[in-house]
Amino acid sequence: MMPTADTSAAAHLDRVRQDHPLVQCLTNPVTVNLVANALLACGATPAMVDIPEEAGLFARGAASAVLVNLGTPQHDQRTAMLEATEPGPDRPRWVLDPVAVGTLPVRTALAQQLLERGPTVIRGNASEIGALAGGAGGRGVDATIGTEEALPAAQDLAGRTGSVVAVSGATDLVTDGERVVRVEGGHPLMARITGAGCALGAIVAAFVAGDVDPLEATVAACCTYAVAGELAAERAARPGSYAVALIDALDAIDADILAARGRVS
Amino acid sequence: MMPTADTSAAAHLDRVRQDHPLVQCLTNPVTVNLVANALLACGATPAMVDIPEEAGLFARGAASAVLVNLGTPQHDQRTAMLEATEPGPDRPRWVLDPVAVGTLPVRTALAQQLLERGPTVIRGNASEIGALAGGAGGRGVDATIGTEEALPAAQDLAGRTGSVVAVSGATDLVTDGERVVRVEGGHPLMARITGAGCALGAIVAAFVAGDVDPLEATVAACCTYAVAGELAAERAARPGSYAVALIDALDAIDADILAARGRVS
Amino acid sequence: MMPTADTSAAAHLDRVRQDHPLVQCLTNPVTVNLVANALLACGATPAMVDIPEEAGLFARGAASAVLVNLGTPQHDQRTAMLEATEPGPDRPRWVLDPVAVGTLPVRTALAQQLLERGPTVIRGNASEIGALAGGAGGRGVDATIGTEEALPAAQDLAGRTGSVVAVSGATDLVTDGERVVRVEGGHPLMARITGAGCALGAIVAAFVAGDVDPLEATVAACCTYAVAGELAAERAARPGSYAVALIDALDAIDADILAARGRVS
Repeated sequence: MMPTADTSAAAHLDRVRQDHPLVQCLTNPVTVNLVANALLACGATPAMVDIPEEAGLFARGAASAVLVNLGTPQHDQRTAMLEATEPGPDRPRWVLDPVAVGTLPVRTALAQQLLERGPTVIRGNASEIGALAGGAGGRGVDATIGTEEALPAAQDLAGRTGSVVAVSGATDLVTDGERVVRVEGGHPLMARITGAGCALGAIVAAFVAGDVDPLEATVAACCTYAVAGELAAERAARPGSYAVALIDALDAIDADILAARGRVS
Repeated sequence: MMPTADTSAAAHLDRVRQDHPLVQCLTNPVTVNLVANALLACGATPAMVDIPEEAGLFARGAASAVLVNLGTPQHDQRTAMLEATEPGPDRPRWVLDPVAVGTLPVRTALAQQLLERGPTVIRGNASEIGALAGGAGGRGVDATIGTEEALPAAQDLAGRTGSVVAVSGATDLVTDGERVVRVEGGHPLMARITGAGCALGAIVAAFVAGDVDPLEATVAACCTYAVAGELAAERAARPGSYAVALIDALDAIDADILAARGRVS
Repeated sequence: MMPTADTSAAAHLDRVRQDHPLVQCLTNPVTVNLVANALLACGATPAMVDIPEEAGLFARGAASAVLVNLGTPQHDQRTAMLEATEPGPDRPRWVLDPVAVGTLPVRTALAQQLLERGPTVIRGNASEIGALAGGAGGRGVDATIGTEEALPAAQDLAGRTGSVVAVSGATDLVTDGERVVRVEGGHPLMARITGAGCALGAIVAAFVAGDVDPLEATVAACCTYAVAGELAAERAARPGSYAVALIDALDAIDADILAARGRVS
């Protein structure tokens, strides 16, 4: 039986705040500033080392975890992504965020290549997870199907890759192919700012760093983020100020708040 | 005679909020986050698909409109810009934002090449429009002449290209070569944050998507933005908080506010 | 004897607000938006001209000063950095921000090449300055040693290159190899947002533009920034809102505030 969020998620958050995992991000310029500030607010340390001839060295020699986000995978960044995820004993845990995969050929081919390298976690919306598992993909970065509809695809993808798969939406689904955990929370304003999904991908990377159960750590990351999303909505009602409040909420959230408000089933 | 803003601009805004046009942006990393959030706040959906071998497919297969912003046109992005604007029956409407053209050779040559492909709208400051029309260009991203001084250049450029030309400034000028519309409003703080012009270019793209009169839709976009700029200044007096308030204002503005406050002549 | 901050720093700030120096930035996408807005808030004009075949022309023909920040030095940007810093009589003053140099090979080699071109100022944290001077480097972007520990390295580096060296930390050290100035101030929240160091590098570039003593101007920039960091902390207690407040504070700070609150020794 899964631990309830009031113990497990809170403990994971405390661990991140204590360990300050160094999260190497290979991500897109659209949302990279939010991603970096979200990591800092959680207690992690971002390092956007994403150029060829540095990315692999940094991943193996310094990073606690790696985020690979396919938002705008320019040529050199693709090379760096392959360097950073090169299989080997020193490779840290890593998260694949398959932004807008499906019909866009460059990122879709790269995503399939990266899948074969066994990401620790794959985090996407329902359309992206569906496309990765063999479906058709969505319209750009937005999901066109609900998370529950994507559950079979998520379980199939997890079973095939050995990855934890997190499907983000109004309710998040997290599965390792057998266990399925649902995380409630968040707020509709999260879909009205750019980068809310990207930031979660980075936070998942921070939480799975180290010797922890990847599914539990992913659930804890989703739960922390969902509660922060609710807290932010108590401070801000429109998207500009909501993006600011979200970073503040990630900084403010602690184990007690998470224990009181996290909703995992 | 032009419709007055209190009917036309408001109707265009309602249409954007209802249709959620998918605006593909090939733009610069400096302001891309603000651009994406400005589009979301207006009700549009941003998609920053700007890599070669994806940009053209996305433009023809998914995008409702395309923004081409020359702020930092790296080599691969230039290739993607040419893909996305390749003439053909499936090409959506597109906006050219010729940032800092004039003396900088790479972007100036690219802008001339793009001009031949008939952008739906060209949006720039007075110096940029003057340079595109054959003048000398300004000092980086700032206009060194006033918008009224650029009117002959704007009309000439519109007549030669078939594009609507929007000259941004304290008073915006919008012309198709024959009609000339002036939009009053905005606030001096818009020039104290980076990306206010870039965000307007993207909003224009959102408004001209679909089967609408490009000049009217461009005027509506400029009018929406000018009123949002005024609303933001009622909430924030300094540039950091003003950038946040501007996104909030784009989210808050509705047809009634626009009808009451828009100033078009 | 050094002038005290209450006259010198304030005079430098007034000069920047009057001259609006045009600061060309070749910097990373993570923090480029903050960098641009920080420059605007100080009264400078940012221009992110960082592509090959434009960067050198702009540096020699238009820029008042140049910032070279090694945060994510992609291939084309490295070429542009070398163009912009090409020695010659028309090259403006320039600042090197050697982000994360040390063990990362691409940027470390580039930094050494750039050092030979005599930056006007080198601004980094203690680990970066130590690594440039021949030490081992830190863990990504964070300093692992204190600023006082880096003083011998900073003096050695300044003596060898002819550059002013600024070591950022709780207390900033600024030295030209002989003179050593300490700037107190700032706030711990500056280390909780991404880009606080990058923004300072750009502000230093704005202050050293023109015919001024580079050490005095660098001290004035550090002092302005430190006081702004304190002012921001009076308005915001968490990192999301602190980043916004920091830009507002850079806009709000004036000669009187600086004279009253600046602490230089």
